[in-house]
Amino acid sequence: MTGALPCLGDLPRVVVVGGGFAGVETALALQSESVRTTLIDRRNFTLFQPLLYQVATGSLSPANIATPLRLLFAHRTNTRVVLDQVVGFDLGSRRVLMQNDAISFDYLVVACGARHHYFGNSHWERFAPGLKTLEDAEDIRRRIFQALEHANQAADPLIKQRLLTFVIVGGGPTSVELAGAVAEIVNQAMQSSFRPPKAVYQRIILAEAAGQLLGGFSTASAEEAHRALRSMGVDVRLHCRVVDVNEVGVVLTDEHGEHRIAAATILWGAGVQASPIAALLAQATGCSVGRDGRIPVESDCSINGHPHVFALGDMASCTQDGKPLPGTAQVAMQQGDHVVKVILRLVSGQTGFLPFRYRNRGSMATIGRRLAVADIGRLHLRGRLAWLTWLTLHLAKLIRFENRLLVLIQWAWSYATANRSASLITGEDPDRRI
Amino acid sequence: MTGALPCLGDLPRVVVVGGGFAGVETALALQSESVRTTLIDRRNFTLFQPLLYQVATGSLSPANIATPLRLLFAHRTNTRVVLDQVVGFDLGSRRVLMQNDAISFDYLVVACGARHHYFGNSHWERFAPGLKTLEDAEDIRRRIFQALEHANQAADPLIKQRLLTFVIVGGGPTSVELAGAVAEIVNQAMQSSFRPPKAVYQRIILAEAAGQLLGGFSTASAEEAHRALRSMGVDVRLHCRVVDVNEVGVVLTDEHGEHRIAAATILWGAGVQASPIAALLAQATGCSVGRDGRIPVESDCSINGHPHVFALGDMASCTQDGKPLPGTAQVAMQQGDHVVKVILRLVSGQTGFLPFRYRNRGSMATIGRRLAVADIGRLHLRGRLAWLTWLTLHLAKLIRFENRLLVLIQWAWSYATANRSASLITGEDPDRRI
Repeated sequence: MTGALPCLGDLPRVVVVGGGFAGVETALALQSESVRTTLIDRRNFTLFQPLLYQVATGSLSPANIATPLRLLFAHRTNTRVVLDQVVGFDLGSRRVLMQNDAISFDYLVVACGARHHYFGNSHWERFAPGLKTLEDAEDIRRRIFQALEHANQAADPLIKQRLLTFVIVGGGPTSVELAGAVAEIVNQAMQSSFRPPKAVYQRIILAEAAGQLLGGFSTASAEEAHRALRSMGVDVRLHCRVVDVNEVGVVLTDEHGEHRIAAATILWGAGVQASPIAALLAQATGCSVGRDGRIPVESDCSINGHPHVFALGDMASCTQDGKPLPGTAQVAMQQGDHVVKVILRLVSGQTGFLPFRYRNRGSMATIGRRLAVADIGRLHLRGRLAWLTWLTLHLAKLIRFENRLLVLIQWAWSYATANRSASLITGEDPDRRI
Repeated sequence: MTGALPCLGDLPRVVVVGGGFAGVETALALQSESVRTTLIDRRNFTLFQPLLYQVATGSLSPANIATPLRLLFAHRTNTRVVLDQVVGFDLGSRRVLMQNDAISFDYLVVACGARHHYFGNSHWERFAPGLKTLEDAEDIRRRIFQALEHANQAADPLIKQRLLTFVIVGGGPTSVELAGAVAEIVNQAMQSSFRPPKAVYQRIILAEAAGQLLGGFSTASAEEAHRALRSMGVDVRLHCRVVDVNEVGVVLTDEHGEHRIAAATILWGAGVQASPIAALLAQATGCSVGRDGRIPVESDCSINGHPHVFALGDMASCTQDGKPLPGTAQVAMQQGDHVVKVILRLVSGQTGFLPFRYRNRGSMATIGRRLAVADIGRLHLRGRLAWLTWLTLHLAKLIRFENRLLVLIQWAWSYATANRSASLITGEDPDRRI
């Protein structure tokens, strides 16, 4: 095979930018191949994002769902991890430009994911954080538990009411899971610790612009999730848009008109936009990104005119049977595996186009501690069976053994006691304030 | 007993300020007694400070060593937790004044601990953080692992040398434990993940102003700790003072003169000063605090002239047999138990003075993953036996069952693999920087 190598006597160099699902999957799939892989990320860990809401609601610790990249590739002699910020691509000299260095490649895989998006209202972010990073999760955790603490002390019923009003914007899986977990926190877990009970004031609102929750799920599952949330006291509002977010609360609008809602905690799950790295790659390759910042890719995940350059995961815009592929971990990982096949064919000198075909292995969302909905092919699971399926699959997917075991124990404990042992309000050091 | 109550028909009100070892022990000991207890803290959790260095070095997660106060007292109907910042004491009307409220007491227990102290050079703090809070631990974790990452990328040997130089100021248990853990990180745990090995550049310096490490321990233990640290490559300097700390590094001075050491990571364990709350209490009671900010107390832990007001733990200045008591968890907890006895005597109308007597149950420090030193009475343990004793006692003391189990599993894993799965660099959200 070495005869076909681009640089004779040396292994071909694959550079992967981004340590999320797509990038890590690519690097893992390459580690037993005859290539030299460099994985670049500005963070030193990979994050299991589907469980981020459990950190935000005090059930899991950050380290339970994050694995340091260096540990993941510690025993792989052909994989190098570089911590740096990518600032550009020079496709002429085949180099990735970083803040502190530059690195040459024969094959380039870019998978930098997406960040939440406020549709031109980025000043809303301060009042309504989204949930994409560990820092986001700790910020949201602080907001939720601080609101409860302040409500516990407040004397004025209007102030108390605002502090116990939680608005979740968006009706996707993360929003549904957050709403369920917040409802549980307010309804049960914290009930015993706060005296007197404040149940009379609490309000959890989930506002979704579309006509159903969980776009992309089956109607049966979406309706089941809706029912489950309502039974937990969540005020689910469909066909409902956010027109303003400020320090007092939100303004929602639906067929009945405009609603001003005073709320101390507003969580954003309404839209995502590709990482700015997508625009840098588009600039270098001469294509243009869409309105959501995603870069269009060919059906083999390469960039038009650049068969050695690939974009995948949430930052790539990819259609199948005329429909855009969803921004999920499944799509990202399958694309990672696919791109490895394409690269290995190119390395061995094979010709011919290898198109990517996404196989939906199922969608799941959990609502609170005991309920979930799952669409697996034509099967719609719900209730405890779906919850157990969700639990098993997520545990199986958590990359390292240790994490799986710790998460299982923490979950089992959480489940048995409904306690939130990770409900720490951290991040603001009160000592610095004195 | 109700006949002797200060407010007839109502239970006496005990207010405890501070949720550290002393405050939590007091509140726990009061929970089965006929009093109403209010525990005030500005944080919503209690922290197991002896293991904070394990968070700072990536072995444990914050939630492993912190327990939310509300969970701890969730099922105690006579104990209320209030999250607020104390701003003063009105002893005339027997009220604790807080930022958002005021609360009346019959008995007041103040135990707000201490913070590190830079001997009039508070501008050093920015370059040399101390280790007292979870935020401190995450800050130090970030500094240590970021220094290693930057060293991995740096080309200039002088820059690399500075990035791989770690200075720990102070030779108490926390400093010794930090030095051991940092040496392990640099020597072993990260060795496999960084290529090529950087061992040639690394330098870990521990500077102690006194003539031996671990003041308060036996000479045998102090010397054993010294030997163990040296065998791990730590450059232990005794009779060595810090005269400057700046963005480049530190200036140390000893009998050989002044040494300018370029170091990217400087950790401070040299001195502590009582919480500013001690000064507020001194003001209200008409006494004056010492140079270290501690408030002097009577031998029963009450404040002179105020038999209903007690100060304990690290913020109280207490002597026994002419020697000041050390600022340890043991002293704090024993004082908590003692004050409860004093209060219950006062409640039941008994007279007579009940002096506090500290019983030293032993001192322990761990050096790395396998070594420890312990003084238990006349017994000096060292090596693995001391390490196992240290492990058992710390596990037994960690307040909640869940934490013990999770910490044990995480330790066992860490021990077996020498991995640092919690070595996450968090706290600076890179998305906000773009």
